[in-house]
Amino acid sequence: MLVRKLLGNRFKETPKDCVIASHALMMKGGYMKFMCTGSYSLFNPAKRITAKIEKIIREEMDKIDGQEVLFPVVMPASLWEESGRYTSIGSEMARFTDRNNTKMVLGMTHEEAAVHMARDTAKSYTDYPFMIYQIQTKFRDEPRARGGLIRVREFTMKDAYSFHTSQKDLEEYYEKCYVAYENIFRRAGAKNVIAVKSDSGMMGGNVSHEFMLLTDIGEDSLAICDDCGYRANVEVADCIVKNDENAIGEIEEVYTPHMKDMDTLVKKLGVDLKASAKAVVYQMNLTDEYVVVFLRGDLEVNETKLRNCLGGEVHAGTITEESGIVAGFIGLKDFKGKAKVVYDRSLKGINSLFTGANKKDYHLKNVNIARDVGEVEYVDVAKAFDGGICPCCGKPTIKVRRGIEVGNIFQLGTKYTKAMDMTYVDSDGGRKNPIMGCYGIGVGRLAASICEEQHDDYGPIWPISIAPWQVEICCLQSEDAEIKAAADKLYEDLTASGVEVLYDDRDIRAGAMFADADLFGIPVRAVVSRKNFDKGVVELSYRDKSYKGEVEIASAAKDIKDRIEQLLEAYN
Amino acid sequence: MLVRKLLGNRFKETPKDCVIASHALMMKGGYMKFMCTGSYSLFNPAKRITAKIEKIIREEMDKIDGQEVLFPVVMPASLWEESGRYTSIGSEMARFTDRNNTKMVLGMTHEEAAVHMARDTAKSYTDYPFMIYQIQTKFRDEPRARGGLIRVREFTMKDAYSFHTSQKDLEEYYEKCYVAYENIFRRAGAKNVIAVKSDSGMMGGNVSHEFMLLTDIGEDSLAICDDCGYRANVEVADCIVKNDENAIGEIEEVYTPHMKDMDTLVKKLGVDLKASAKAVVYQMNLTDEYVVVFLRGDLEVNETKLRNCLGGEVHAGTITEESGIVAGFIGLKDFKGKAKVVYDRSLKGINSLFTGANKKDYHLKNVNIARDVGEVEYVDVAKAFDGGICPCCGKPTIKVRRGIEVGNIFQLGTKYTKAMDMTYVDSDGGRKNPIMGCYGIGVGRLAASICEEQHDDYGPIWPISIAPWQVEICCLQSEDAEIKAAADKLYEDLTASGVEVLYDDRDIRAGAMFADADLFGIPVRAVVSRKNFDKGVVELSYRDKSYKGEVEIASAAKDIKDRIEQLLEAYN
Repeated sequence: MLVRKLLGNRFKETPKDCVIASHALMMKGGYMKFMCTGSYSLFNPAKRITAKIEKIIREEMDKIDGQEVLFPVVMPASLWEESGRYTSIGSEMARFTDRNNTKMVLGMTHEEAAVHMARDTAKSYTDYPFMIYQIQTKFRDEPRARGGLIRVREFTMKDAYSFHTSQKDLEEYYEKCYVAYENIFRRAGAKNVIAVKSDSGMMGGNVSHEFMLLTDIGEDSLAICDDCGYRANVEVADCIVKNDENAIGEIEEVYTPHMKDMDTLVKKLGVDLKASAKAVVYQMNLTDEYVVVFLRGDLEVNETKLRNCLGGEVHAGTITEESGIVAGFIGLKDFKGKAKVVYDRSLKGINSLFTGANKKDYHLKNVNIARDVGEVEYVDVAKAFDGGICPCCGKPTIKVRRGIEVGNIFQLGTKYTKAMDMTYVDSDGGRKNPIMGCYGIGVGRLAASICEEQHDDYGPIWPISIAPWQVEICCLQSEDAEIKAAADKLYEDLTASGVEVLYDDRDIRAGAMFADADLFGIPVRAVVSRKNFDKGVVELSYRDKSYKGEVEIASAAKDIKDRIEQLLEAYN
Repeated sequence: MLVRKLLGNRFKETPKDCVIASHALMMKGGYMKFMCTGSYSLFNPAKRITAKIEKIIREEMDKIDGQEVLFPVVMPASLWEESGRYTSIGSEMARFTDRNNTKMVLGMTHEEAAVHMARDTAKSYTDYPFMIYQIQTKFRDEPRARGGLIRVREFTMKDAYSFHTSQKDLEEYYEKCYVAYENIFRRAGAKNVIAVKSDSGMMGGNVSHEFMLLTDIGEDSLAICDDCGYRANVEVADCIVKNDENAIGEIEEVYTPHMKDMDTLVKKLGVDLKASAKAVVYQMNLTDEYVVVFLRGDLEVNETKLRNCLGGEVHAGTITEESGIVAGFIGLKDFKGKAKVVYDRSLKGINSLFTGANKKDYHLKNVNIARDVGEVEYVDVAKAFDGGICPCCGKPTIKVRRGIEVGNIFQLGTKYTKAMDMTYVDSDGGRKNPIMGCYGIGVGRLAASICEEQHDDYGPIWPISIAPWQVEICCLQSEDAEIKAAADKLYEDLTASGVEVLYDDRDIRAGAMFADADLFGIPVRAVVSRKNFDKGVVELSYRDKSYKGEVEIASAAKDIKDRIEQLLEAYN
């Protein structure tokens, strides 16, 4: 491909709305064009990158016996009513009415379609297990589209669905898929992807893992123990604290006017947060019932764990007078609010707690839960934190890092097959619901995440396995017929030998040409110029700066091809 | 791939709603699953077929300097408002409102997106020409979805858009694309695809061609002259008749009660249709103004030509008393209806016409237009017919045949670039609108059309270039360890040598296995059985019945691979 024929501008200025590097570089490099919130058109270089990622995904899915299929993007609402998700999913799902007044939805995931495809076919246990997958457009009306291709509304996704006759078989396949995912991310050149335990969210099911590309700009927080290898999304990570055993003291009332929050109390009274109990008030989404969570003063509530613990969604509570809750002074002892009370286990073992007095302008010192509240059930609803105790090895080694979710795998169980009445006849003649797993990878997000991980100030540094082209030839003096002829020949020879070449023969300044080359991020650069030509060489350099040198003009095509093959080997 | 692991049923009974062979066979063969009107999920064999077609398309588009890109399926209505098509397209376009109350549409074609992508980039004449294309899902809310994948609402389409600085350059590129299309259809194995001149419809522009796969079940009628090669969609084909010069006679009123239609007149009075003028009444869609078309009694009005002649859409007219039109007795002489009158040129040269008297229960004999009506402008709005005169060579050799449109190419001109204000600076410093072409191919429809063209009663006969697999091995006695081992080895050897193999090792009757194999439609079948094994051979046969024979077991893998390569050569 000739740069001068390639559609798309490259430019210097970072667009105003770009707050992360991959977004800025992919805009500046002519990879994509903004269409509307969370939606981009992809220029050829980006399409080439995603096509290579898709090829890697296909190969790995086929290796674990995946059958590629294709589901419709537009589905009848009736299908989603079968699973119950037509009502349980909110405004993220785009809906419309067709010309026959039939309610339709745009697919944001395809569990329903997978069951629909398989349920009339896989009727006997001998038909199992199997896995079907597709690579297809999805639309999810995200409220917070941001970061270029990292979080969009329309995206290309590989989604796979496996069907099994036993939990054991699902678990074995899940393990295979886990390994396939590791292969995919490695082959695509992502360096820092780890799998973490995660929450199943709207998918349902129990066990699930997210594959996270570690980066400071990630949206997810991960609890990681480098000592033992424990990894979990903070959403589900256990929060374990070790409390100092302080002395049991006598209750003491403290006058605390205008000190409604912990910060003020700490500043004005020198309260030790690790020996205090704070209260956070929620309301259940469905009933508006109040939920008061008591937890150690220095910790935060993990709303995902709280939701799972309560079995329903919650939102921040608005305290009314009728509730009997004394806002700002909620305490453990003599709490009389009309609310469900949740005790986080971070309070366990603290003998004397500083807490609200359930009375305006007063707090209490030295509250002891056993003595002053009675026997309570402790649950785990606090957020894991940096320096917390690893639930796996017990050391205080938890680090919280940020990551971008580039893939996920779920053990769904029978949620969909039950709801949609998919059954098979087992070897014993009984009728059963198959057990499902599902497995997703966002193609564009993976491309952008790798750019986020591997770039410098000047542009992306694409791994050769997904780079839009493998070599870029820069011809510095295309007005010089001899130089142009040498560069043309190198382009032809390389192309003929199967190397993917981007060729810049524009009559522009070397600086401008190299700036564009940095934005293209092609792994190998070959510079043909008068200076090099007179020395009988072509100058080679790698975009990741790991190599710079010269090869003889006569053997340049062969040398470059050999290098490409060698570089590619690392991604097989 | 093992047949027993492949998801999808094959069955004998033709589903009730299947009226054409490709639809029936692709349902019976486990290629697709009905989801809702005009929408199917594709099982693995169908996905493999479409993937191969897509690969052929990509290669041919890349050969003519196409740059693959990707546009969003969901677009903001504002983009379609720019071109004017948000209002000009009716309920075929699916529309919804997103969570931010922004009006969105589902892409049914992507001219607007192509201009949006290119307009900020291609600002100088030196950036031209270029062509961008995508292979992407489209949704068109068809009122008449039918025939399986032939006419669906959701489909995968290759759509390409070229941009030029001169009409000449567009025409040259259009010619290249025409050749690329011929290559695509040939390589995909379609045998009877012809290009015909067509109407541009909602796309705008002037010159356009449709690529039609000839088949009796086609939705389009084509006027073809086998003598000189003239081909056009009947929608645009000139209708030329040669009228006998009859004598000019005296006008004579005929009492024709209850004879409102030509059929009755012919039967009761023996009227010669070729010497009669019938009237067809329409109304303009926008104004309801009446339009009366007079044409030769044996011909039909071509509404596409009429629309183009009038410059607006029409519908069948509902005649009211106020209109002054005497329904059933409309005639050329003394027509006093409030209507625009259109004279089709088929009436030219008939000296004495039988026609209505514009008076209830009367017709006139021997009307002469020049004498009784005056000078009129003749236009061409009649439908071309079998036996009509070829507009190209002048012989009465027109045959009307039916075809399925599998591709189309349009010279769009500046319709979109003007409306959407896309300009570039020309070599003379002037600001101009680029000239566009657009080029589409429906991937699934092409697959189904090829099945329609190449099948027998038992299943599809896939051309090897798009067949889901190249070889099917049928192991007839898989319970016999020796036979199973021989078949397994053939499967492994062929797979290892890069041949795509479907392997049926199920323990079922030979008849059932062969019935399934017919439905799979794989070009080469290899039968491993006790009988063949004892003779030291594998039995080979081609699905299209062009070959049947035996190869030695020892060299079977190599022999089959050689045959595959030889078969593939025809599609390069």
